[in-house]
Amino acid sequence: MASEIELVAMRRAIDVARERGNCLPNPTVGCVVLDADGREVGIGATVRKGAHAEIEALAAAGERAKGGTAVVTLEPCRHIGNTGPCTEALIAAGVTRVVIAETDPHSEAGGGAEVLRAAGIEVETGVLADEAEPHNRAWRFAVVHGRPFVTWKYAATMDGLSAAPDGSSKWITGPDARRDVQTFRAQCDAIVAGTGAVLADDPRLTVRDAEDLPLPYDLQPLRVVVGETRIPNYYRVFDRVAPTLLIQSREPEEVLDKLTENGIKHAWLEGGPRLAGGFWKAGLIDRVIGYIAPSMLGSGRAALEGEAATLADLRPIEITDLSTVGHDIRIIGTPGAAPRETYI
Amino acid sequence: MASEIELVAMRRAIDVARERGNCLPNPTVGCVVLDADGREVGIGATVRKGAHAEIEALAAAGERAKGGTAVVTLEPCRHIGNTGPCTEALIAAGVTRVVIAETDPHSEAGGGAEVLRAAGIEVETGVLADEAEPHNRAWRFAVVHGRPFVTWKYAATMDGLSAAPDGSSKWITGPDARRDVQTFRAQCDAIVAGTGAVLADDPRLTVRDAEDLPLPYDLQPLRVVVGETRIPNYYRVFDRVAPTLLIQSREPEEVLDKLTENGIKHAWLEGGPRLAGGFWKAGLIDRVIGYIAPSMLGSGRAALEGEAATLADLRPIEITDLSTVGHDIRIIGTPGAAPRETYI
Ligand SMILES: NC(=O)c1ccc[n+]([C@@H]2O[C@H](COP(=O)([O-])OP(=O)(O)OC[C@H]3O[C@@H](n4cnc5c(N)ncnc54)[C@H](OP(=O)(O)O)[C@@H]3O)[C@@H](O)[C@H]2O)c1
Ligand SMILES: NC(=O)c1ccc[n+]([C@@H]2O[C@H](COP(=O)([O-])OP(=O)(O)OC[C@H]3O[C@@H](n4cnc5c(N)ncnc54)[C@H](OP(=O)(O)O)[C@@H]3O)[C@@H](O)[C@H]2O)c1
Repeated sequence: MASEIELVAMRRAIDVARERGNCLPNPTVGCVVLDADGREVGIGATVRKGAHAEIEALAAAGERAKGGTAVVTLEPCRHIGNTGPCTEALIAAGVTRVVIAETDPHSEAGGGAEVLRAAGIEVETGVLADEAEPHNRAWRFAVVHGRPFVTWKYAATMDGLSAAPDGSSKWITGPDARRDVQTFRAQCDAIVAGTGAVLADDPRLTVRDAEDLPLPYDLQPLRVVVGETRIPNYYRVFDRVAPTLLIQSREPEEVLDKLTENGIKHAWLEGGPRLAGGFWKAGLIDRVIGYIAPSMLGSGRAALEGEAATLADLRPIEITDLSTVGHDIRIIGTPGAAPRETYI
Repeated sequence: MASEIELVAMRRAIDVARERGNCLPNPTVGCVVLDADGREVGIGATVRKGAHAEIEALAAAGERAKGGTAVVTLEPCRHIGNTGPCTEALIAAGVTRVVIAETDPHSEAGGGAEVLRAAGIEVETGVLADEAEPHNRAWRFAVVHGRPFVTWKYAATMDGLSAAPDGSSKWITGPDARRDVQTFRAQCDAIVAGTGAVLADDPRLTVRDAEDLPLPYDLQPLRVVVGETRIPNYYRVFDRVAPTLLIQSREPEEVLDKLTENGIKHAWLEGGPRLAGGFWKAGLIDRVIGYIAPSMLGSGRAALEGEAATLADLRPIEITDLSTVGHDIRIIGTPGAAPRETYI
């Protein structure tokens, strides 16, 4: 069983991973190294497209890691057929115990933990796994299901409209909601829109900070435009702020295959209503984030264009979060997870 | 200035009025009588279509009211040209002081308070008026504006749809939301629907308790069906549970005139989307209560049918309450009151 000191260290490791944020296509990992007396001698977290948490924490600990314990939020990865760099580093540093929160979904037949045990290290897994899990939800989903986790974001009025009849949709929601969207976009590695939305709104599809400055190019999610219509090259989606992928398809499955080929783990689907309707119909939306503006429009484009005929086509959503963001209401939910029975 | 004892008595009077609930077409009033030593000797509240609060409280106090104080949530009404029954009763009972929360909006040129003062009674008004106000919001609005207060209720999916393409709309929301609607309906004195909604859903438009039993006939709100189409007499809106008024018009102003003629102070507009759209366009909706079901439909009838062309037609709503009711989300708001500027 993990000691009180190890639980405290695990919470520190979880916190440092949370602060580091999105490390896709890799998981976000935090690590704390304790010396033989249980004193913290090193801490680290994965750097996006950079060093791993264990390497950073062991480097800080140096010689003091010998005979100590490494506390890690995720099972150190074992590369197929050989020892991964982190397991190798832990063995070389001479730690005698490794405490792990989540196990690696890649390794059904035994992964890093098994390699460490074979090297004579005491390994304990599942410690505070529930607290560590939310960080890597999309990454884990993608590893398990072999396709990206899909979050669909929409903004609509209280009467469910996302654009006026003339197509105008800037801005339905307020500045706080739009900033909130930037925070969520930053958690993804692809931002996906249909040709309709791109042609109508000329969106940037980039992650920007509070001063509206874009993240560096190599930290931007991949911009993805879906559909067969050609987008003229003066559209902002082709600026040099972020990479852009065109997927000339109308099949959501095919779109996700292309994203998987490109290593994408978490796709942020921004609409418009036809593309969203296609994903919705195919059952390929894993999370919905709706911003409901405190207003009514009376006529316009719906947030979702689907093919319901009767009320039995109603698709339930389990609400996981309800809050206000500035003047707007934000609803986060998981499609298909609520007990429909209770509504009949 | 009101004494501590009088403030406590006023809160008691406000509570007893709140418990009594809807007394439309009259306001809900609570009254506490204190004897000359400040002891509570009588308490009362308006009975719907029955006795007034002051009469009930004075009856309980009897002789002990002499030289005492009456604490009332609303200025006792002065009937045009003569003394109202309550002011008369207060004078006859020999109270020497009357403490009032809200003044009567009927009486710009002086009402019950003035009559009491002329009889030598010390009168203080505005005591805890803010706390007493919410009870009689709709009644006060109707007195001031000469038309009923209109609450529009709708139920919709997260994509803003109130019925499937085939017209089916039972049930989008869950049982808790439907019970919640009954509580609100009980606060009104008219339940209004268009011929479209009546023909599609055959609604009862009555107030029912938790066991689905209707309130007695004389406590039911007036059922109102709006539109020129004839409703066959076997529809439930013509059952004997509550009175029903047909208004053969498509003009919201004319509908409200008819309701005013019938003494209605608080109309509960239940839809459907065309009738709601007519009221919305005319700016005649004073409060919106939206129940958002945690589901998506993809196609169907919007909650509101209006005539927006571009985003400038967006009409703001100030949200006054956001909560969950069972699995559903309830949004209460006031149209036209939010600062639209912040959304541009
Ligand atoms: N408020 C919001 O959240 C929000 C967000 C985005 C957009 N909007 C508004 O939405 C409007 C644009 O609507 P839209 O429906 O034209 O945009 P859209 O869904 O972005 O684009 C539709 C196009 O996407 C392509 N597509 C790819 N897969 C599809 C599938 N499975 N089903 C259908 N189409 C698929 C097709 O392109 P090809 O025809 O080229 O093959 C189709 O024409 C604009 O007015 C915009 O302002 C609002
Ligand atoms: N989910 C909900 O909250 C909810 C609530 C109610 C209804 N519904 C659904 O709504 C659908 C019925 O829709 P609907 O639009 O036909 O119902 P509606 O709005 O109740 O009825 C429309 C009719 O109302 C009359 N009307 C009166 N004033 C009007 C005005 N200013 N503008 C337009 N019409 C006016 C007209 O009657 P005449 O043509 O007879 O003159 C018109 O045809 C049904 O599918 C029902 O299930 C949903």
